[in-house]
Amino acid sequence: MWIKRHLPGTRMSQAVVHNGIVYLAGQVAEDTAAGVRGQTEQVLWQVDTLLADCGSGKDRILSATVYLADIGTFAEMNAAWDAWVDRADPPARATVEARLAAPEYLVEIVVVAAR
Amino acid sequence: MWIKRHLPGTRMSQAVVHNGIVYLAGQVAEDTAAGVRGQTEQVLWQVDTLLADCGSGKDRILSATVYLADIGTFAEMNAAWDAWVDRADPPARATVEARLAAPEYLVEIVVVAAR
Amino acid sequence: MWIKRHLPGTRMSQAVVHNGIVYLAGQVAEDTAAGVRGQTEQVLWQVDTLLADCGSGKDRILSATVYLADIGTFAEMNAAWDAWVDRADPPARATVEARLAAPEYLVEIVVVAAR
Repeated sequence: MWIKRHLPGTRMSQAVVHNGIVYLAGQVAEDTAAGVRGQTEQVLWQVDTLLADCGSGKDRILSATVYLADIGTFAEMNAAWDAWVDRADPPARATVEARLAAPEYLVEIVVVAAR
Repeated sequence: MWIKRHLPGTRMSQAVVHNGIVYLAGQVAEDTAAGVRGQTEQVLWQVDTLLADCGSGKDRILSATVYLADIGTFAEMNAAWDAWVDRADPPARATVEARLAAPEYLVEIVVVAAR
Repeated sequence: MWIKRHLPGTRMSQAVVHNGIVYLAGQVAEDTAAGVRGQTEQVLWQVDTLLADCGSGKDRILSATVYLADIGTFAEMNAAWDAWVDRADPPARATVEARLAAPEYLVEIVVVAAR
C-alpha cells in the first residue's frame, strides 16, 4: 500500500500519509524567543499547514500528544490550544512533561489525523 | 470517512473512532487519594468503560503508553496491569516516566484499540 | 478484523499487527553496558528484526517515538539513527527525555509501521 512522505529530510519526514492516516513529526516552534503560549500558537499553525498540505485539517485530528518542558505551563499551553481546537471535533489528547531536544523548546506536539 | 467523537469536551474528546480504530485520551484516576496501584486500577477500569462504549474491549488493544510520575512505581503499576491485561491478547506497550498534568496524578495511560 | 500478536508475554506483546499496521512495544537494549549510541544500534536492530518478522521493514515505518533518559545524548542517539534510517523513506519522528523502566536503559524507541 502507498506511503507518501512529506518534507522528507535525511533524518525524518515532517509528515507521512498511509491508508488515509497522516502521522506528523513532533512539531516545535521556530521562534523560540516566544513563551509557552506563543510557541504553542506557532506549533499549532505548523500543524494546520502540514495537515493542509496532506489533505487533512484540524477537524480531522484523531489524537494529539503534547509534551511540555515544564508541566507548570499547562494552563498557558491550553490558552493557545483552547483558542485553536475545533470545538465541534476535538481530538483525543494526552499531555505530559518532558524535556525536549533543545532547552529553548518549551512545547512539542505530535498529531495523528485522518485525511 | 466517518469520524466519531465520544464524550467530546471543549478541549478534547475522551475517545475518537475512525476506520475501525479507537484512540483514547490519556486516562488519569478520578480518586487521586489512591496510590499508584489503586490509580492504575481506576485508569484501567476507565479504559474498559470507554472501549466498551466504542464497541471495543481490552482483548482488542493494539498499543498502550504508560506514563508514571515516578518510574520507581513501575512494579506497583504492573501489579494492577498484570491482574487486568488479557493474557491471551496482550497489547504492545511502552512505559516511561513523566510528570503529569497535576501532581496528584501518579499514572496516565493512552490506548489505541481495534473495534 | 484479524489481530496478530507477535511474541506475546503475560504482560505485553513485542508487536501487534492489525489492518496492515504493525505496532511495536517500546524497544530497549539487551546489553546495557553499551552507551547511548551502542544501545540505539541494538534497539534499531531489534526493530529491524521485529518488523521483518511481521512482514514489514524500516522503509515502511510511519512514525517513531524516541525516549532518551538524558536529552543531552541527542547527538549520540542520532549518530546511530542517521546511519540506520532509510534516507529514501524516513518516518515521522519525535524525541523527548524520559526516565525509562530501569536506570541502565538509556534509550527506548516505539515504532508504528505499515506492512
